[in-house]
Parts: sequence; structure tokens; C-alpha cells
Amino acid sequence: MNVCVEIHDGPLGAPVAFGAEGVGALVCFEGLVRPTESEEPIAALDYQVYSPMAEQMLEALGRELIERYRLLAIATEHSRGRVPVGACSFRLRIASRHRREALAAMEEFIDRLKQEVPIWKKAVPVTAPAEVMP
Amino acid sequence: MNVCVEIHDGPLGAPVAFGAEGVGALVCFEGLVRPTESEEPIAALDYQVYSPMAEQMLEALGRELIERYRLLAIATEHSRGRVPVGACSFRLRIASRHRREALAAMEEFIDRLKQEVPIWKKAVPVTAPAEVMP
Repeated sequence: MNVCVEIHDGPLGAPVAFGAEGVGALVCFEGLVRPTESEEPIAALDYQVYSPMAEQMLEALGRELIERYRLLAIATEHSRGRVPVGACSFRLRIASRHRREALAAMEEFIDRLKQEVPIWKKAVPVTAPAEVMP
Repeated sequence: MNVCVEIHDGPLGAPVAFGAEGVGALVCFEGLVRPTESEEPIAALDYQVYSPMAEQMLEALGRELIERYRLLAIATEHSRGRVPVGACSFRLRIASRHRREALAAMEEFIDRLKQEVPIWKKAVPVTAPAEVMP
């Protein structure tokens, strides 16, 4: 079954080719680190990934959704370690025959990733500027 | 307001850079020509686009969804003319702060594109193989 899971150190690079025969809909979701967390400015997020459990859960989730939504392929990548503001820390790509199942599966995958998979993030605060001596 | 609409002759090429400040979610949908239409094998789809009305409606739809879902940017491209099986004929990209509004807006944009925008497709049948003379 066509499920690919990758954990990378640091920000995710450009995606490699992805597809499957008979594809009618290709959907790609990218999560980027926003400049604020709980309304406080941040410099980066530090991701802690409990491997290999996280990979196994992501793969099982991908297999479940491929079967239930009758998808053609799923590829997902997640960062581990520090990812600066503006960079990509998560990517999910789904290939299916028609659009509805791809969008529904995307929503469920991301919801369950956040609820079930042992990946935690911690905000790295923006360093306060050095005080100017009087 | 950050809405970009493009109609291209033939299949869509690789996408250009897309984003906005403060983005947390980037979603890209690509529609590819499937090898069958109403269960009959096809070689391509011919798209007829009623311009400039189609562009104006896509831009108005983009503006409406940006405002209602509080998105950051929308870019969409659609093919006109012949697009062979396997090639991309439609692309929609949405940038937002959080994922839920991007996915909801994506679903609504595609539904309304299909219902409201004057773009029609016609299947190009696979040419039957020449009969072998006895």
C-alpha cells in the first residue's frame, strides 16, 4: 500500500515527485511556523518526536485512511528539532481519484496527527534586544 | 486583496512561488485529467472557458472567500483548450493562518467553480486502433 512517512531534522525541503496512476486530485498541505504562539512573538519551534512510535502511528494512520477513503497514495513528512518562523515543519500529500475523499482524509489525518501521534512542540522565544547602557 | 487568477492554454506548468506574511497553512489542490470519463477511456479533455466572465467570477469568488474565511491569499489557475490524460488542468492554492479555514475555503471554492463559473469540458475519445486487414 502506497504510504510514505519521513521524519527530517530541521525544516522540510522542497517536496519530491508524488503521484499514482489514475489520479484526479492531488492535495498538498504544508504547515509553516507562524511568528506568534499564544500571541507571543517567537523565533522558532522545537519539535520533539518520539521515534519510532511516531513513524509507526503515522504509517498506520495513512494505511487506515487509504483504505477507508479509497485513496491512491499518502506521503507525509514531519520535522524534528528546531524549525524557524516561516519554515515548513509538516507536509501531507494525498492522491485520489476524486477531490472529496482527498480533502476529507486530509482533515482527518491532521486532526488525528495532533491528537494521537507523540510529537510535541515548544516555542523558542525571540531573544530580547540587549539593553543599551546609559 | 491578494487574489490571483490565471487562465492558461493547455496543461498547467509548475507553480510559481506563493505565500504571504504570517502564513501557518498552505494548501494546494491540483486537478488532473483522469484516464476515464463516465467509465469510457479518454485521451484528453477539451476545456472551453467563457472569458473574461470566468476570470471575473473566479476573482470575485476568491475575494469573497478571503474575506469570509479571513484567508491571507488565494491563487488559482485553469486550463483552456486541450489537456491530455495525466496532466494538470486546475490548481488552487490558499494561504491562511490556520488550517481549518484553508480547507473549508478550498472545498467551497471548488464546489462553486464547478457550479457557477462558465467553464465546460468535453471528453476527447481514445482513437480506436486501425483495423488489421485480413
